[in-house]
Amino acid sequence: MRKRFRFVISRTLKKALMSNQVNIRALAEELNLSIGTISKALNDSHEISAKTKARVLDLVSQRNYIPNAYASNLRKRKSNTIAVVMPDVADSFFSVAIKGIEQVAQTKGYHVLIYLTYESYEKEQAILKEIISGRVDGVLVSVACETSGLLHFQTVKEKNIPIVFFDRSVDLDTTKIVTNDYHSSYAATEHLIKKGCSNIKYLSVSSSIYFSINNNRMEGCRQALKDNNLASGESAILQCSNDATENYHLLKDLLSASERPDGLILSVEKLILPLYKVCDELQLSIPDTIKPVCFTNLKTAPILSPSLTTIEQPAYEIGETAANMLFKALGKRPVPLKDETIQIPSKLIIRNSTCREAMAC
Amino acid sequence: MRKRFRFVISRTLKKALMSNQVNIRALAEELNLSIGTISKALNDSHEISAKTKARVLDLVSQRNYIPNAYASNLRKRKSNTIAVVMPDVADSFFSVAIKGIEQVAQTKGYHVLIYLTYESYEKEQAILKEIISGRVDGVLVSVACETSGLLHFQTVKEKNIPIVFFDRSVDLDTTKIVTNDYHSSYAATEHLIKKGCSNIKYLSVSSSIYFSINNNRMEGCRQALKDNNLASGESAILQCSNDATENYHLLKDLLSASERPDGLILSVEKLILPLYKVCDELQLSIPDTIKPVCFTNLKTAPILSPSLTTIEQPAYEIGETAANMLFKALGKRPVPLKDETIQIPSKLIIRNSTCREAMAC
Repeated sequence: MRKRFRFVISRTLKKALMSNQVNIRALAEELNLSIGTISKALNDSHEISAKTKARVLDLVSQRNYIPNAYASNLRKRKSNTIAVVMPDVADSFFSVAIKGIEQVAQTKGYHVLIYLTYESYEKEQAILKEIISGRVDGVLVSVACETSGLLHFQTVKEKNIPIVFFDRSVDLDTTKIVTNDYHSSYAATEHLIKKGCSNIKYLSVSSSIYFSINNNRMEGCRQALKDNNLASGESAILQCSNDATENYHLLKDLLSASERPDGLILSVEKLILPLYKVCDELQLSIPDTIKPVCFTNLKTAPILSPSLTTIEQPAYEIGETAANMLFKALGKRPVPLKDETIQIPSKLIIRNSTCREAMAC
Repeated sequence: MRKRFRFVISRTLKKALMSNQVNIRALAEELNLSIGTISKALNDSHEISAKTKARVLDLVSQRNYIPNAYASNLRKRKSNTIAVVMPDVADSFFSVAIKGIEQVAQTKGYHVLIYLTYESYEKEQAILKEIISGRVDGVLVSVACETSGLLHFQTVKEKNIPIVFFDRSVDLDTTKIVTNDYHSSYAATEHLIKKGCSNIKYLSVSSSIYFSINNNRMEGCRQALKDNNLASGESAILQCSNDATENYHLLKDLLSASERPDGLILSVEKLILPLYKVCDELQLSIPDTIKPVCFTNLKTAPILSPSLTTIEQPAYEIGETAANMLFKALGKRPVPLKDETIQIPSKLIIRNSTCREAMAC
């Protein structure tokens, strides 16, 4: 019975392999081995001698034989693929973080399936539903800014699929790799105060309580304002959006008002372009009239007009560390991912947008 | 015999489904249907009535049942996944092109597997070898600049996997979506000549004859130089590299020499940062002493110091069109992809780097 079952599996496998224009039986005949032995050798079974494995692999390589990935995955119950769920690639943080992830995946012989949410909660839910259908062995997530629930992440955990958050996390019992957003924002606000700003606004892009990085950055800014006896209430926050045109109008209104702020903390990169545009149109001097700092890894920050003071995140290291944590957990039951938060610090880089003689700041 | 074979398939399938914590037999028993009927209903078979399909789907949805993607793909011989093989995401052309591709894939219910070559021929070959193992239904490729052969693409074609090139193509009998690099480069060179440049250099990043866009851009520039009786031989080309530090030194040597060029065509985005840095260090005025134009979709080009004249590629449209062409060909035998090249034009956007009063240029 056991033997018959093994034969059936081989036949199914053979069908899959045949469709790949490869005849496993021909390999077996040429080497005078059974189909089962060939299959075991390809799977590096301990039942097969090193010499036989070498004979099989030699012929496989001569015949340009490639096992069908699906048939092979179905047998092994692994896909050799991890998913990365993130908002966008047109953002310098993510385009660098993905390099850190790719680098680790490549050394492990894994594929990286990149899914983009474009900040949508709905898309994120649909993507995670797909993921639990068994297509990937593990998942790295950077949460969409519109996300307002945890259930879709909880479901991944319940299916025993390892999940690690990077940069943008939620309160789920697993490992998160983040940066020190609260402290960076506090330091950036203090820098603005030291440079003479007394009316500082934090430009937010999400009001979701689930959007961790925004909350931490916002609270860091407010605490610095409070500690320096400056207005830190709702008036210190401007709620922006994900739409460039809308942000342009919001910023134009803000900077045309009589109570114009003299310092700005930009929580995301996409606010840079509308801000520079509005300042140019209203002929407001950066840094004389208004001093912006931005959370970004933008490579062109040093050559902007004027160069932009930034809080530079350790994007590559965050991606790399998250991938390393995930790979340690793959294929293990129960999933050995502790409920811990690993913080890699960001750097405040002072440039001309907040200090005319930045070199001396 | 036929019936027995079908039972075997169902058992294999069941095993796969079971591992996903779902019991297809339990579904069958609860609905008083055979396992075969359930399976057919899930595959939307014409043999099953709409009423039965609805009953199955209702229970499936109540039980939060998700078919195992691999088992399902093995039966259907399709993965509902396309691969995008491209050099990088930290480049504004690719980060926008991928949005065009994602948008199309999403409407078709497909996954996008992004593979990055980081410009390496070797990595590109390894990736395409993976791809032909049956993991994807089709592939979109933008060729690495170090690629110096076609065999790995030819093999994909021979396996009947549809392949479409976008932006960077090779001479393979399939569909390519590109932009008008030759004409854009010709127009940019003529613009520099009109602005008074007489010693123009084209900055190349690859000498591979397989790197189509570089060859077209280089030839467009040389032809414009020739037509205007300017030096168009080897002296008009500077071979740069993929390494930022190396490019910095190459540019520093070039711009420190007595025969310094007065106009530059930058073939890729990554040359912008080293160029601006060198000009700053050598105190060379852009545009008074040197006028650069760059092939790029860089969003910050208008706010650089000075703003940068660019040849802006239709990145989104190229990605979208390539994906649409690929989807039309999926699942068809023979692969209905004509040997054709579709060209979507780029735009020359004149800014301060080549003209002090860009508005009037």
